[in-house]
Amino acid sequence: MSLFGLFPRKKTASAARDRLQILLAHERTGGGGSSELLAKLREEVLAAIAKHVSVDETRVNVSMKNEDEMSIIEIDLEIPHADLPRLRLAASR
Amino acid sequence: MSLFGLFPRKKTASAARDRLQILLAHERTGGGGSSELLAKLREEVLAAIAKHVSVDETRVNVSMKNEDEMSIIEIDLEIPHADLPRLRLAASR
Repeated sequence: MSLFGLFPRKKTASAARDRLQILLAHERTGGGGSSELLAKLREEVLAAIAKHVSVDETRVNVSMKNEDEMSIIEIDLEIPHADLPRLRLAASR
Repeated sequence: MSLFGLFPRKKTASAARDRLQILLAHERTGGGGSSELLAKLREEVLAAIAKHVSVDETRVNVSMKNEDEMSIIEIDLEIPHADLPRLRLAASR
């Protein structure tokens, strides 16, 4: 399944911010069980982002949905452009 | 924007595998620039997963799409159920 094209290019309120969206989805076949794995990955992803972005300047929104066989975590960040040169430097290391 | 409900609950070929999907999307306002940030996050996310899942037993598929103002990385894994007790143990630490 391709999920490309699911992120519409709507303009955000501030033109001086980039947007980073991360979706984590865990589908459990056979039913049952919780998704501690996803909760753990959420922490590790947020820690990885915090290495590159000054979190106090960044608007972060995390939401989670749990169903019987599916858990989804959505992480949504707006990153000020002032952070971007630092991001590119860190990312190229 | 809520992206919940975008992952349909289709049955996979093997009932003995869970499915983990990760989407990373970087929307660059003002246009231009590349997405080294996303490539870096991809590496960190794959490393985080490898801490909890035996990668040789896991089917991993990574795809990337680059446009002018948007980059999207999709990571798709099928995890054998034999790994799950280990995952839960690692995640609860």
